[in-house]
Order: sequence, then C-alpha cells, then structure tokens
Amino acid sequence: MMHSTKQRLIDMGLSMLLKQGYNNLGIQALLTATGTPKGSFYHHFADKEDFALEVIDAYIAQVHAGLDACLRDKELPPLARVRLFFEQTQQSYQKDGYMGCLLGGLGQELSGVSEVFRHKIEWCFSAIANALATCLEEARKRGEISTACDVRQMANILVDCWEGAALRSRLRQNPESLNAMLDFYIRSVATG
Amino acid sequence: MMHSTKQRLIDMGLSMLLKQGYNNLGIQALLTATGTPKGSFYHHFADKEDFALEVIDAYIAQVHAGLDACLRDKELPPLARVRLFFEQTQQSYQKDGYMGCLLGGLGQELSGVSEVFRHKIEWCFSAIANALATCLEEARKRGEISTACDVRQMANILVDCWEGAALRSRLRQNPESLNAMLDFYIRSVATG
Repeated sequence: MMHSTKQRLIDMGLSMLLKQGYNNLGIQALLTATGTPKGSFYHHFADKEDFALEVIDAYIAQVHAGLDACLRDKELPPLARVRLFFEQTQQSYQKDGYMGCLLGGLGQELSGVSEVFRHKIEWCFSAIANALATCLEEARKRGEISTACDVRQMANILVDCWEGAALRSRLRQNPESLNAMLDFYIRSVATG
Repeated sequence: MMHSTKQRLIDMGLSMLLKQGYNNLGIQALLTATGTPKGSFYHHFADKEDFALEVIDAYIAQVHAGLDACLRDKELPPLARVRLFFEQTQQSYQKDGYMGCLLGGLGQELSGVSEVFRHKIEWCFSAIANALATCLEEARKRGEISTACDVRQMANILVDCWEGAALRSRLRQNPESLNAMLDFYIRSVATG
C-alpha cells in the first residue's frame, strides 16, 4: 500500500495539474494545500517532473481500471461496452468540473519542450487505444462493425476525437461536445 | 499597416507560444529572440496576457484567411473544399514541426485558470465551426451529405475531432492521426 503522505500529494497534484497545468503549479502551493513539509515531498519525489510523472501513472491506472471494468463486461455487446467506458469517463469529467483529460492537458502544454512527457503521454494514449482495439475486434467478429474495419486505426481515431471533444467540453463547461462526438463515432462505425 | 516591431514580436510570440506554451514563455526570452528593448514591448502591449491575446488574434486571422480561400472556391464541390482547408492546415502544421494548433495548446493550458482565455478560445472555435457549417450547408443542399444532417453540429464535431488529432500529431511528430481522422470524417458524412 502506498504511503499516505505520498498518496495525498498525488491525489491533490492530480486535481491541481488538471486545473492549472504543470508550469503554473507551484510545489509550495501543493505543500500548503496538503499540509506537507517540504522535506517530505523530496523524500517521495526527486523533483517536480518526477512528481508529475507519478501523477500521470496514478491517472492512467484509474483509466485502465475503468477500461477493464467496462470492456470485459460480457453481459454487454462489445460496442455498448466501448460506449459505456466513454459515458463513465464523461461522468468523471463532470465530477471534476469539466477540466477535461489530464493527458490532453499535459500533452499540449509539455510535448513541445519535453521529450520525456511527449513519449510518456503518447505511450498512455497508445495503451488506451490498444485496449479499445481489442474490444472493437470483438465487435468486428460479431458483425457489429464492418469486417473491413481496421480496428487499431479506428481505436486511435476514437481516442483522438475524444481528446478534442474533451478540450471543447473544458472550454464550454458542458458535456455537449463529448456526447455529440461519441454518438457520431458509434453511428459511423456501426453496421446498420 | 502594423508597426514592424509589434509585428516581429507577434510573429516570434506565435512560434514560441506554439512550442512552449504560455506559462513557460518568458518575456525576456522573447525580447532577446527579437532584439527588442523592454520599453518597446510595453509600448505595444499592456502585459503578457494582452500580448498573448494579440497573438491569438493574429493566428485566428490566418485561419480565417485559409477558410475564406478554401471554402469560397466554387470550382470545387463543397465537401472537397472542407477537405482542402484541413489538408492545407496539416501542411502548415508540418511546416511548424508538428506543434499542433495554438488554440488547442493555449485552450488546454489556460482555460482552467483564466476565463479570459477560455472565452476567447471558445469564441475562436465557434467562429471556425460557423464558417465550416456554411460550407456543409451547401454540401447538404447539393446532396453530398445527408439532408437530415445538422450542419452546425457536424461542423463543431469536425473542429473538435481535428483538435484531438492535432494533439496526437504533436505527440507523434507525424501527420498520420490528422489524415486518418479527416478520411474517417469525410467517409462518414458523405452520402454514397
């Protein structure tokens, strides 16, 4: 089990990075918000970059827990599982006050100046797309989507379009763009 | 005509903001890169925020010049004009070294902490979607897309999905996600 101080820093860091991004986040503000002494932060993390990378790990672990719970639910047809995952993601965005996706936020802010973050975030998106592709392949075999469908490409398109809709939901502070994009995608890939 | 010092600051600012974002940009670095004295910067701009908002204005003016040139080209059918605009945008991303879209970058970095940038960038996306909707309406009337199509919604979906693909092209440093998304969208909306 993770040390409770470390867990508290990561939880608060996730919320602060989601709202204000990386460069705007001060370590002192994080320490104040969590009531943590400075030495304790540097006991758990080498520096701010190391901290943010651990926050991304915690975030992506949550995403994969959601993917596992939704995509392995054999009670539902495969395409309905994909939809369920994104509907739950949308509900989690709503709970956070429509701050969008941490990967999209940090990916935009940092990928032009940091190869570490660029590779890390691309790796996260690829992993999400891989999980979705496995479920789309099941949908393809069951005839829910066209047999000609390139499931890996369609999974990547889904991740990308979702990220754009997540940015728009952040700008508009509502879920309209997420729902519209998801409906469009499912309608477009579903056979008949 | 714009004062040449101001124009130089805006051009360099666009390139720097695209690459490194807002909070990571130092005014001193901008002054050094352009050989501009500090007083001259504050003669033209009230502060960093004012400067970034003017850079966004310059960026969106370029986008609308591209939209006008492509979408009013009556030699092409409407849907081909829409495709042309995004193909040209992709070429401009390539020229910039796949830094993606300034609106997406600043929208992600700043909309959680600044209502000024959140509203400004949402306004920019809405204006782009409006221009695209007009062309999609022409496509609808000509039977290129379904008569049941809600062109305003489909224009917003296009803008959103493009922004997500632009982020991915930034992470991957290649145009694959942009081409895949555009092909998928056009294939999905086109009738037969």
